[in-house]
Amino acid sequence: MTSTDALSTTELPTTTQQWVLASRPTGLPTDENFRLETVDLPELNDGDILVANSVATVDPYMRGRMNDTKSYVPPFQLDQPMTGGAVGTVLASKSDKFQVGDAVRHSYGWQTNAVIADSEATPVDLNVAPAAAYLGILGLTGLTAYVGLTAVGEMKEGDVVFISGAAGAVGSAAGQFAKQMGASRVIGSAGSDEKVERLLELGFDAAFNYNDGPVAEQLAKTAPEGIDFYFDNVGGDHLEAAIGAMRTFGRVAMCGAISQYNNTGAPTGPRNLALAIGKCITLRGFVLGKYLHLAGEFQERMAPQVVSGKVAYDVTTRHGIENMPAAFLELFSGGNTGKMVVEF
Amino acid sequence: MTSTDALSTTELPTTTQQWVLASRPTGLPTDENFRLETVDLPELNDGDILVANSVATVDPYMRGRMNDTKSYVPPFQLDQPMTGGAVGTVLASKSDKFQVGDAVRHSYGWQTNAVIADSEATPVDLNVAPAAAYLGILGLTGLTAYVGLTAVGEMKEGDVVFISGAAGAVGSAAGQFAKQMGASRVIGSAGSDEKVERLLELGFDAAFNYNDGPVAEQLAKTAPEGIDFYFDNVGGDHLEAAIGAMRTFGRVAMCGAISQYNNTGAPTGPRNLALAIGKCITLRGFVLGKYLHLAGEFQERMAPQVVSGKVAYDVTTRHGIENMPAAFLELFSGGNTGKMVVEF
Repeated sequence: MTSTDALSTTELPTTTQQWVLASRPTGLPTDENFRLETVDLPELNDGDILVANSVATVDPYMRGRMNDTKSYVPPFQLDQPMTGGAVGTVLASKSDKFQVGDAVRHSYGWQTNAVIADSEATPVDLNVAPAAAYLGILGLTGLTAYVGLTAVGEMKEGDVVFISGAAGAVGSAAGQFAKQMGASRVIGSAGSDEKVERLLELGFDAAFNYNDGPVAEQLAKTAPEGIDFYFDNVGGDHLEAAIGAMRTFGRVAMCGAISQYNNTGAPTGPRNLALAIGKCITLRGFVLGKYLHLAGEFQERMAPQVVSGKVAYDVTTRHGIENMPAAFLELFSGGNTGKMVVEF
Repeated sequence: MTSTDALSTTELPTTTQQWVLASRPTGLPTDENFRLETVDLPELNDGDILVANSVATVDPYMRGRMNDTKSYVPPFQLDQPMTGGAVGTVLASKSDKFQVGDAVRHSYGWQTNAVIADSEATPVDLNVAPAAAYLGILGLTGLTAYVGLTAVGEMKEGDVVFISGAAGAVGSAAGQFAKQMGASRVIGSAGSDEKVERLLELGFDAAFNYNDGPVAEQLAKTAPEGIDFYFDNVGGDHLEAAIGAMRTFGRVAMCGAISQYNNTGAPTGPRNLALAIGKCITLRGFVLGKYLHLAGEFQERMAPQVVSGKVAYDVTTRHGIENMPAAFLELFSGGNTGKMVVEF
């Protein structure tokens, strides 16, 4: 194919604004770690599409990519554009797969426009669900919650389930999925009374504000008989409290440790981990990249629940590419309820 | 049955010497926590046997039973006899199952003689293996090693396996079983150069003395490519080092934490537990009581390897019931290689 399917070429952007990693943070990132640049877009090769991003996601795991440490996702490179999920509209296409006007999901976020190979884009239908849903509960966020409950943590019908960071994107999905899968009771923790209120609206059986007192005490009150399953998004004292409350053959899906990501002091572990011996507890860490083969199963089982409204989701939206780092940093101060996205 | 099958009654003991828990220890137990008493034996009821113990076992898990805390095995009671595995000879029987002269294994150790129900005794054949083997590698010790490798930790052929406390009864069995099951490389840690030497004789591919330097450094040297499986008998810095060296989808069977049992300071956890997320590590604690249904499978698969000599085992023997607490305490200072038993 040599022709380019495109809007009138005069309307096409020739540059993109993109965030690059200016320096690596120590502890909580600051504005100085990010730099917004305007650069020329490359020409489209055969198979490429030009996408104007409308919504991009910020996620806690991106903090790890700002470090120069070998991890499950490669680190962002200094002075190179940062990446992450985004939904946009095809403005020009040299691909058989996509036409101008198509909505696509891809991983070239943190920028306004992008030229990408069609193999790196997935079509989405914005009549079925909004872009934020495709970046969240119907996307990797929802899949993370599903995988944590199923293949990783082996949640069983009748389990008493505890979820930390429960008002976050993954947590709120996990709590509702757990109810759908037959948990006898789902308890969530969150960082404000408003979030606790929201969890109860979403169908959590109990919820508490972890700022109201020690997690272990509040968990003991809300789960007096103990718990069978803990979906860990937080680490630290939440993990320790969950191990303490766990019943025999309990399971922990270790999804994230947001309480630790910006910790520059001596790292700490749960002081009661040895209890896992007597209680026969299983703790299993996971990253989504190793479980992407479950995406089809997830779509089949859970997408209808989302589209029908049985499973709800919240979105916190910030506006303008210039505010993207600030939106990202809000994740660590609890500024979001549900999925945090930035609209351009 | 009303008659008693017995040696000439004049020869039968009418008393037993038994160790009772005199007080609960703080930290490392001392002599004052134990008291040796001589008490009358009860009459035999129908189904009972009188056993003269010849060999009794001391095990690290007994330390936990000296605390007054709810655990997977009930605590020893103050001023009551302590219990544990023993092998002895039937001196008198009101049971159809056992005759005078039979050798039996039971859990009324820490005493010279015992009257027990026949349902609590298992026959053993001392022509096949000595008493210490039935208390160790062919008994609960061997089963613990087997269960940790199989049902709990899901060791796979080709795994690089690391075992702490490897010269101990469970550790030396686990290392040899792992080789039999196809581990590509088995590395052990122990607390003296003699023990390290012994591990190499037993077929470990590498071994180190944890007193020679930080565990993490020595593990990195002996397993430069990392490990896939860790059989944890020790906890503490061993567990932390193993998590650090673990490869993707690695597994930890948490069997014991002997480094922590007498710890009275602030408990510590592995500071790097959050690495389990990115590495997709599974840590699973276990107690043997939940896996006794695998005893038959274990006997079938592993007993022939032991009886034929393919799997070796060491026994450290102390003599005299009066020395039983001292033998027990030696477990925590590394005085034993292999199974520690006391002969009466």
